[in-house]
Order: sequence, then structure tokens, then C-alpha cells
Amino acid sequence: MAAFQITRRVQFSETDMAGVMHFSNYLRWAEDAEHAFWRSLGMSVHQTQEDGSAISWPRVAVECQYAAPLRFEDEVELRVRVAEIGEKSLRFEIEFVLGRKRVATARTKAACCRVAGGQFRSVEIPPAIRAALAACSHEG
Amino acid sequence: MAAFQITRRVQFSETDMAGVMHFSNYLRWAEDAEHAFWRSLGMSVHQTQEDGSAISWPRVAVECQYAAPLRFEDEVELRVRVAEIGEKSLRFEIEFVLGRKRVATARTKAACCRVAGGQFRSVEIPPAIRAALAACSHEG
Amino acid sequence: MAAFQITRRVQFSETDMAGVMHFSNYLRWAEDAEHAFWRSLGMSVHQTQEDGSAISWPRVAVECQYAAPLRFEDEVELRVRVAEIGEKSLRFEIEFVLGRKRVATARTKAACCRVAGGQFRSVEIPPAIRAALAACSHEG
Amino acid sequence: MAAFQITRRVQFSETDMAGVMHFSNYLRWAEDAEHAFWRSLGMSVHQTQEDGSAISWPRVAVECQYAAPLRFEDEVELRVRVAEIGEKSLRFEIEFVLGRKRVATARTKAACCRVAGGQFRSVEIPPAIRAALAACSHEG
Repeated sequence: MAAFQITRRVQFSETDMAGVMHFSNYLRWAEDAEHAFWRSLGMSVHQTQEDGSAISWPRVAVECQYAAPLRFEDEVELRVRVAEIGEKSLRFEIEFVLGRKRVATARTKAACCRVAGGQFRSVEIPPAIRAALAACSHEG
Repeated sequence: MAAFQITRRVQFSETDMAGVMHFSNYLRWAEDAEHAFWRSLGMSVHQTQEDGSAISWPRVAVECQYAAPLRFEDEVELRVRVAEIGEKSLRFEIEFVLGRKRVATARTKAACCRVAGGQFRSVEIPPAIRAALAACSHEG
Repeated sequence: MAAFQITRRVQFSETDMAGVMHFSNYLRWAEDAEHAFWRSLGMSVHQTQEDGSAISWPRVAVECQYAAPLRFEDEVELRVRVAEIGEKSLRFEIEFVLGRKRVATARTKAACCRVAGGQFRSVEIPPAIRAALAACSHEG
Repeated sequence: MAAFQITRRVQFSETDMAGVMHFSNYLRWAEDAEHAFWRSLGMSVHQTQEDGSAISWPRVAVECQYAAPLRFEDEVELRVRVAEIGEKSLRFEIEFVLGRKRVATARTKAACCRVAGGQFRSVEIPPAIRAALAACSHEG
């Protein structure tokens, strides 16, 4: 079961000459849905700290399977599920649903990092963030 | 061993506020490298036929693993390898190399389709295309 | 006065390494707002006809002035105004408003075209479309 | 006369469902050509200073006129001209040429800024940069 969902419409600039949404845009959409999920928890995916550094979540891996194309002005549901909460990383699964049909599934793995001066350092997920995520994945 | 390779530079519009290339652009780059590979065989990935239909290669699945970030103006090698030639589909593997370090690996699976009137129909890979691809994968 | 408006949030993938929304995205947003405006009239910007051709609106010219940057997760109002209804073309003006401040203004000119077989032919704006647009610009 | 030029090919992901390059990509290309021009002068458009701040060039205004469409795999020349060197800003003109035909013209105005902590402050163009630019515009 999804922890969170948003609805989104295919824009003209997201189509390609084959007349369908370009495959790379699904991964941008999946990220946008994840970020909306963070906001639904009252947090931002990119949290600036008092010392000027930030806690951020760069991708370690992504994948997407495509079952059917999306076309201009299609309205699509994105269902976000917290698939795994690791010590220093997080897995999401995002389903794309058009009508009642699943048209694509994206899976992403993000590492919890402290970012400062353009450098990334992998860190443990802070307890407050872990607690908020765990509450959601229990719903799932 | 790679069948083909191109070099490409990270553009400003491809970076994000974390100061690195946005993860979705690797998949666009991988596609661009595949299409350059098709051109190196004297073909286009999107071949219009005499009857107005086209042979095209929509994605069935993509994945990418990220080992290290890319930054503005980095010059990156993309090494394209034909990983599998199926009956109706094709797998590519694309390595991203900066200096001597592999910074990312993308894998894609594309289905051979006849496209007409915005509809896709899966078909067997035409013999001329199969022969050209097989020659390359034997080099690998 | 605006004929139509939408609200939109800056996504992570729309930022660049300067920490702000990349300038090119304002023009994609302006187009998306125009298309939402067409939908508000019960029409699509890309209308397929019975003979397989389509009435579409390629850009002849665009411009954008930037007064202040937009940042990740900013929520922005886009106000669409029909600036001019010509015989064969249309001008829109789109204001970007953050809080009460206008942060950018885009202006676009689109030509009414019949598209068939990948070719564009400039045509007069069909009467039904003209009437719907005129009603909106009278509101302005 | 152009101070600098590059050649670039239309990629599949840059096309839209009308079968041509999406209008917003011309402005990304124009920026990429400007940045290649900076590199040809031995400089980067984004110069980090010893104090951690950077000299950068955010857009104040852009415009583009479109005369003819570009299609997948078209190879296009971009001719960059320094149109005006102001006290604190710079204007470029970029022509897009396919075969011998000018298919589009972009004009951009960028402000010389010192960027620190995500804030932009307009500054005079540093003398070394001004001298390098002036040499190019005299060639024109």
C-alpha cells in the first residue's frame, strides 16, 4: 500500500517524436513524488543545517520498468511506497497508474549524506527522520 | 570491451543545486550514446519505412548505478556495449568514465517495434539490423 | 488582468548549481500554463482533426525577463494573459509571481498551423477557437 | 561575424510530439554555446574565487525567434557573437544555422554577479574578463 500519492499531467515538452512521454521523465517524476512525500511529513529532502552544511539524499541507484506509454495530457497517479529503511540509505518504489492500469514502476535507492562545500559524506539517517519514515512504512 | 564510445561534457543546465549532474541526465546521455552508436553503423535508431510506419526502439526497462558525482564542465567517456541481442529486444550497457574512474553504469532494454499512427507493435529484429549488431557484439 | 492562472512548485531537477531555477525552465512553465489555459476553455492546444492532421501552435518567438531568482520548493503563481489575437497568430504574456513580487515575465508568439506528415502550414485561426479566445481577452 | 562557433546534433529526447526540437532547447543550446565560448578564452563562465564566492553570469533577459524547425539528428551550427559589453552586463547573439539557412536567432543578456551563500550581487565586469571579451568582439 502506498504511503503517499500525487497526480500529475503529461506536458507537451515531456513528449518526444514517438508521440509519448520520454522515458527519462518518469525518473524525474519519481523524484518529484518522493520530494512531495517528504513535504507531507513536514520536511524537505534537502535540509540545511545550522553550520551551513545540508542533509541531502543523492541517488545511488535507480531503475524503471515501462509497461505502456503515456501521452500528452494524460493524468497519472504516482504512488510512493517506502520499500526499505537502511542504516544509511533508503529505498522507494513508485508506481505510475493511468486509469486502473499500472503503466510503469520506478525503484530508487538514496544515500543519506552530509553535503558541505560540494562534497558528499555518507551518514546514518538522523533519528527524527528515521522515526517519521518508519511511521509511514508501517502504514504500508 | 566497448563496441563504441563518445566523449561528452557536463553542461550548466544539467547540474542541480547540489552542485552535480542531476541523476536523470545520465539516462538521457546513455540514450544519446546508443543513438550515436546506431549512426556509427550507418543507421538511425528511428527508421522510417516506405509505408510511412517506422521501426523504433522504445525502452522496456532502464537502470543506473551511481558511484561518484559529475560536475560542471567534466569531460566524460561513455562506453557503449551491446549486452544481449534477443529475438525482439536488445540490451545495452553504458559505462561512464571520468579520468580512469568508472563513475556510473547504465543498462537499458529496448523492444524492436513497428510504430504507426502513434501505436507500438513489438516485432522481430529485422535481419539487416541483427547482422550489423552481431558484428559489433563479436568485437566485444 | 489575467485570463487564467496556475500555481506551481520549483522541483529539485529544475534547479542548477547556482542554487536557483534554471532560466530555460521558465519558458517550459510558460508553455505548460498556456496549455492549462487551453484546457480551461475545454480545448487542447494540439487538436487532431478527422483527416489525421492536427491544428497546433508552434512558437514563432519567445522572450523572458528575470527580476529575481526562484529557489527549490518555491510556490509560484503563473498568470496567463491573451495579449493579442492576430489573423494567424496569437500572443500570450505570462507573469511569474512569488509572494506579491513579480519575479519574471515571459512573452510568446505562436502561429496557428495545420500539421500533417511532420510539415507545418500556417493557417487562419479557426472561428470556434477565435471566439473562445476573444471571450477571455475581453475579461482582461 | 561570429567570434566563435560550435556544431551540435538534435537528440531524440530534445524532440517533441510535433516531431521537431522543442523550442525551449534552443535556449539551453545557446547557453551551452556561450559556455564553450568562455572555455575558448581559457575561462569558465562560473569562476570560483579564493574566498569561496564565485563570479557568475545569471540571465537578465533572453529571447529567441524561430524561422524553421529542427528535426532529430539534424546537425546545426551555433554562431556566437558578443553583441554588447556593458559595465555590469553582457549581450550575446547566437545564430542557429542548418545547411546554409538560419533557422533561429537567440539573444541573451547576462549580469556579472558575485555569488556567495546563494545570494547574487551585481558587480562590474572584472578587467581581465573585459579585456578577453573585447578582443573577441573586435574580431567581429
